[in-house]
Amino acid sequence: MARTETRTEIVAEPNSHQIIVTREFAAPRELLFRAHTDPELLAQWLGPRELTMEIDQFEVRNGGRWRYIHRDANGAEYGFRGVFHGDPSVDGIIQTFEFEGMPGHVCLETLTFEERGDKTVLRGSSIFQSVADRDGMIESGIRERGFWK
Amino acid sequence: MARTETRTEIVAEPNSHQIIVTREFAAPRELLFRAHTDPELLAQWLGPRELTMEIDQFEVRNGGRWRYIHRDANGAEYGFRGVFHGDPSVDGIIQTFEFEGMPGHVCLETLTFEERGDKTVLRGSSIFQSVADRDGMIESGIRERGFWK
Repeated sequence: MARTETRTEIVAEPNSHQIIVTREFAAPRELLFRAHTDPELLAQWLGPRELTMEIDQFEVRNGGRWRYIHRDANGAEYGFRGVFHGDPSVDGIIQTFEFEGMPGHVCLETLTFEERGDKTVLRGSSIFQSVADRDGMIESGIRERGFWK
Repeated sequence: MARTETRTEIVAEPNSHQIIVTREFAAPRELLFRAHTDPELLAQWLGPRELTMEIDQFEVRNGGRWRYIHRDANGAEYGFRGVFHGDPSVDGIIQTFEFEGMPGHVCLETLTFEERGDKTVLRGSSIFQSVADRDGMIESGIRERGFWK
């Protein structure tokens, strides 16, 4: 996908379980959906630029499991995993998300692709099991968590 | 299981995504875990007493799907569904939860079984996608949602 995106907006209200990330892309929603569900496309953009990306598992269906691994230049591995709730579609993707380095801390992610003229607004809501978990994600650097390169 | 439970405590802070329900049972945690993962046991206690319970699907594993239906005396059906995140164990169950009557409104549930002497404290945390969804669940009557008969 051409790098036609505009600014990213991150909203995290104080004392909330939620982080909302929105970003507008000059691309149709079908293409954005594909970029989130086709493993070959996903590997091209997900995660920090300096890490390599390996998709271990990516079952795009209700109950399907997904798992990917980021590796740094020293070989350190950062694994992430979850499951899809419902069948992913252009109307939205609902999935769980867990960093294997902090097992047992899970969040619920909801991605939507909203057409706005010839652009698409991608909205990602993450709901954490506790406000402390949410705050920890912000402190660890939400950019590193891998929303977009 | 004998009806040896004590009081139920429900905590829902204002302006929060979360509901926490705790209840102490005079039973070992392994038995409580079985009551949550063995469909035959589950059907005996889950949901309002005046409704019948049919378990349509119950795959107790990472990515496993679950679905059950409550029916009232007039034949009206109330379906619920979700998926398990991770393998359910006595250390905890993490699952998504959706009422089919309000599709697209999903919450993340975390159940734990904490031994306290010869008793077990069952703790259920539900995190909703929005505070409005959480408030709606409370207003609709959390007892009817089916935590315990």
